[in-house]
Order: sequence, then structure tokens, then C-alpha cells
Amino acid sequence: MPEYSRFRGSDLRAFVVAVFERYGMPHDDAVVGAEALVHADEMGIDSHGVAHLATHRPYVPGLKDGSVNAKAVPEIVRDSPANALMDAKSGFGPVASTRAMQLAIEKARATGAGFVAVTNSKHYGAAAHYALMAVDHGMIGLSMTIGGLGVVPTYGRERRLGINPLSVAAPANREHPFLLDIATSVVAGGKLELARMRKESIPQGWIVDKAGKPTTNPYDFANGGALLPLGGAPETGSYKGYGLAVMIDIFCGLLTGFGFAAQLGSVDGRPHFFGAWDVSTFQPLDRFTAMMDEMIQTLHATQPAEGAERVMVHGDREFAMLRERTQNGIPLHPEVVENLQRVANDTGIALPAPVPV
Amino acid sequence: MPEYSRFRGSDLRAFVVAVFERYGMPHDDAVVGAEALVHADEMGIDSHGVAHLATHRPYVPGLKDGSVNAKAVPEIVRDSPANALMDAKSGFGPVASTRAMQLAIEKARATGAGFVAVTNSKHYGAAAHYALMAVDHGMIGLSMTIGGLGVVPTYGRERRLGINPLSVAAPANREHPFLLDIATSVVAGGKLELARMRKESIPQGWIVDKAGKPTTNPYDFANGGALLPLGGAPETGSYKGYGLAVMIDIFCGLLTGFGFAAQLGSVDGRPHFFGAWDVSTFQPLDRFTAMMDEMIQTLHATQPAEGAERVMVHGDREFAMLRERTQNGIPLHPEVVENLQRVANDTGIALPAPVPV
Repeated sequence: MPEYSRFRGSDLRAFVVAVFERYGMPHDDAVVGAEALVHADEMGIDSHGVAHLATHRPYVPGLKDGSVNAKAVPEIVRDSPANALMDAKSGFGPVASTRAMQLAIEKARATGAGFVAVTNSKHYGAAAHYALMAVDHGMIGLSMTIGGLGVVPTYGRERRLGINPLSVAAPANREHPFLLDIATSVVAGGKLELARMRKESIPQGWIVDKAGKPTTNPYDFANGGALLPLGGAPETGSYKGYGLAVMIDIFCGLLTGFGFAAQLGSVDGRPHFFGAWDVSTFQPLDRFTAMMDEMIQTLHATQPAEGAERVMVHGDREFAMLRERTQNGIPLHPEVVENLQRVANDTGIALPAPVPV
Repeated sequence: MPEYSRFRGSDLRAFVVAVFERYGMPHDDAVVGAEALVHADEMGIDSHGVAHLATHRPYVPGLKDGSVNAKAVPEIVRDSPANALMDAKSGFGPVASTRAMQLAIEKARATGAGFVAVTNSKHYGAAAHYALMAVDHGMIGLSMTIGGLGVVPTYGRERRLGINPLSVAAPANREHPFLLDIATSVVAGGKLELARMRKESIPQGWIVDKAGKPTTNPYDFANGGALLPLGGAPETGSYKGYGLAVMIDIFCGLLTGFGFAAQLGSVDGRPHFFGAWDVSTFQPLDRFTAMMDEMIQTLHATQPAEGAERVMVHGDREFAMLRERTQNGIPLHPEVVENLQRVANDTGIALPAPVPV
């Protein structure tokens, strides 16, 4: 068991802001970008927090080599009362994405619903971060993007679909917001990585090998295999996950004109789609959030299956984590700390001290 | 093998229109209602066509006993540029649903996107019928409703979720439109019925028994069991299907104030949610549909898995069926013909003759 150190969210934010500014990002953009990453960490979405800041191309390496344009100013290239198309100009994904979601919220405030498709952006971090922005305004939020090419269509043996995530968030009153944040594949890549590290086999129904046959060997994925769409096998509805992945390709890749997952391949750029619906245009907000509370409580009160502990609702895990990590700090793996230390050395910006144990 | 008879779509439409009018429905509403059912049959969605016309409460029996108000005039009770809330006034589901989708399309033409939530409606037939309406206007269509209470949340043993369907349709050019039409459970109820009729066991991962344990006995469903959400087991992502079902409850049941699936229980009434996005507010329509063609062709060209024949795309089956059945007529099971004959006897409206073999 490696020893994790905990870091205060505010310290990590300040560090990441300073690093981004060091690479030429305007202060406001750096704040927005740091927020997306550290908020993901606070919600326990570790795969989309600061873990890859130092190592993944859409983050510091891209800012260093210029493939991510630190000074990009997102531009609205098409506009209607409810919709807009935004060109991110190869800027940092979370910056354009935050601006786009803000615009969707403004449009929803004016017309009832707002949608912004973003072209020519980069990896945007955690889908949930943007969907949740709408919740603070009494709105339902939607966030989608095209993920890495990694999924076979039903009955196929070639990767043709992205690991496309979908997030939808809706406000409650006493309960936490509903927060759906899912990849449309059975699992995302992170769980395979974990199985390989632990030298474990994986459950049937996660991936196929290069012949398109189901396999429990996690190494078959990199060896010409692929993830299966949500549903797993044809007889358990894999065409449903397949269809959801295509739907996301359509909203993100085709409405922007940027391209669908199979076209993008290993291209760095990413398109996104954001949306917001103003609840009060349908129902008084307090009535809606009271019903949300009741629904969440009803789901929690479901009698568990034999041998199961309890029934959870989407957001339980993330908001419990947020409370815990806001209080106690964000635990980072020693390897992540080491990578961040390298960024600190490169930039001359001091890595904050961990929370004393 | 029972002997199916084929009926011309136009003949069935005329029959259903006359039946609806006989029960007091205004002509235009009867046409709209008949269209929803017969179009579903033509697309091969037999479970939502005329099969249940004679037997299911939201159709002829409801019109007869007055629980479905044949003369209901749907009313807009809340309106904003992009959104509306419609009260179906306990009318026939497909009538309010068609009016709602028309309104969503009008709003999308004016603002770029339009959404209509419908309260106090009845079973609306096939979700796909409404999503497809948008496609004819160069728009992406969305259609959702709350289905019968039949699904357990992950780790639960009680039914708390509806068999909630989601349909999304998008226009292509030379290719057929993309047409996603899925329940958010692993399977819908029809497949269980079939297994029971054939006295077959069902695949692991479709349902649980009354203890919440996975089972392959289709009779366990009616015996206190439940369907599993898309994903099947927790380790293969059942919380994703669970979350999609809740999302649909939120859009349909909470934005309308009508109630979520677990509240509705066996209530006859149903809420819906419809949406349309005008493609041309994001991309020139011809550029979008050309990319749609290319995407569909790329998916079709995927090398099949060992032992599989080919990779299909969502809509392949429905549009092939539509061509075939428009040409050769709609095959109806003898039991369905018998039920329709009873409606004919009741109303004095002659059942059309089948297509000569």
C-alpha cells in the first residue's frame, strides 16, 4: 500500500494557477482551469484531477510544447437564442468548457434552455464539473465529450467509438444534487489499468480481444482489443451503450463539424456539448427540488438485495467525498506527488506542503 | 408457427381512425393517434403498434370506459421561448405527444432548441415515432417517457424505476436517419413474455428474483422480482442504466410535477418529455448530414467479430422494416387479428381484409 499524502484543495488550486500562469495563461483562465481539476479531485474523480497534470499532453506538456494554446480566446462562431457554436482555438479544454457552460446557462436564463457546442478544444477533465455548474442556477445541466477511441460497436472487432462520457446534474433541496457521470462503455480505461497493475483478471463483459471475442485478460485491450459498450454482450443490450456513444458523437463531433470518434482517432483535439434547462420554466423551483428530495429518499429507502448493504443514488459518493476531502485534504499517490514536484522544479513554483498527519 | 396475416398500412390507418372517431375523438386527433400506432408497426416496433389497441387500458378500453378522454384538448400551462409545459388533460397519449413534439419543433425553429414536457397524459406508444418527427425538419429529436414500474436500482430488491425509454433521432442524407430507441433496463418486458411463452430460460443479467438475486427463470419477474437496469450487474455498470432511468424520471416526472416512477406505481397516467435541436444553428445542414452518412458508413464497415455477420447501426432494422412493410403490408399475429375483430364487432366498423397471399 503506497503512502498517500494529503494536500489542501486551496493549496493545490494556488499551485496549479501559478503553474498555468507561468506557461502564459491569463490569470482568470488559470483560475478556471485549476478549479476544474481540483474540483474533480475533491469529488473523488481522481482520474480527471491533478494526477495527469504533469504527464498528459492536454495539460502541462501541451502548454509547454504549444499544442495547447495558453492564450487562446474562445470565439462564438454561430449564435442563436438557445444555441451557440464556440471555437476553443486549441486552448486549454477546461477554459473553453467553463465559458461554454456559462453561456449555456445565460441562454437558459433568457430563453429557458441553452446549448453550446465546442469545437477545436482539448480534453476537458471531468464531465461532472460542467453539468454541476447549472445546478447552482436552479437548472439541469448536461455535459458530453468524445473520449479516446477505445470501444467496439456491437458485433464488431475494431474500435470505432470513443470512451464517450455523459453527465447530467439536477438540483435538490436538502439532499445533494443528482449527479450522473458515466462513460458509455462498460467501464472506463482506469479500471483496466488497475487490473493490470494488480495482475488480476477482469470480469467477463468488459472487453474483447483482437478477434472481437470476450476475454477476461486485461492485457488483451492494448493488444488489438477494445472495450465493450455499456450492456456488454448483444443479449444484454450492448447496442444500447453503442447507440448512446454514437449519440454523443453526433452532439459533440457532428454538430461542431469537428469529427466523430473514429475520424478523430488519436488526434489531441476534442469537441464537447453543454446544455442547461431552467427548471422554473417548467415547475416552481422549490416544488421541483422538494420532489427531488423525495425521489432520492425513496431510492435510498429501497430494500437492499440479499447480501447487499444499501442502495445508493448518483452523487452520494461524489458529495460525501467532497465533504471529506474539503475537510481533510486531497490524498495524492506518491507517484503523482513526484510528478507534480517535477512541474514545481521546471517552473520554480513551490509545491505546497502536504497536510501534517 | 402461427399464421400471420398481412394488412396494408393505409387500411389499418383508416380502420383505427374510424374506431377512434366512433369513441368520440375529433377527426384530426384520430388521424394523429392512428399514425403513431401504425407507424410503429411499420417500423417493426410491434409491441407499440395496433397489437394492444383492443386490450390495453390506455387505448380502446380506456376510450370506452372514459379513463382516456377522447375529446381532451391539450393545454399549454407554462411557456417560455424554448420550453413549454403541456397538460394532456387525460387525453389519448399519442395525440398530446404529437402536438407537444410539433410545438418543440416550432420553438426550435424560432430559438434553435425547443422542449415540451407533458403532464397528465397516457401511454404514448413508441418513443421513436416522436423523435423521428424532428428529423423531417432538419433537427435532432428527443423523446422520453416513464414506463411501467419494473426495474430495481443497483443493489436493490424492490422495483423503484420505470422501464423508461429514450429515443434520439438525427437526420442523414443518403443513409437512413440515426434512430436510437432503447429502454434503460437491460431488456423491456416483451422479451420476458416471449421466453415465458416458449418456456425458455433467460440470460443471466436480465432480471432478479424477489430476494434481489440474479436468476434465469423468467417467471421470477412476476413473482416479486424485477428487471435489472442496463449494465446488468454492478461490476458491469448497472448503476449507469439506473442513473439513465432516474434522469428520465427527472425530465418527465419532475419537470412536469406529475411524479417519479416509484410514485406513479400502477397509475395509468404518464408524463413525457420531448425536444428538438435545429441542426442549422450549429452547422450547415448539408454538411452535417454528409458527416452523418460518413459516420454510418464507417460504422457499417467495421470488421465483424469472429463468428459475427456484420455491424449494424441504429435505425437499420427499423428503416428496412419500414420499406418492407410499406410494400408488403404489416404482419399481424392471429390473436391480434382476433382482438381487432372484436373491436370491429363492438364498433360496427369493418376490419379491413388482409393482403391476399
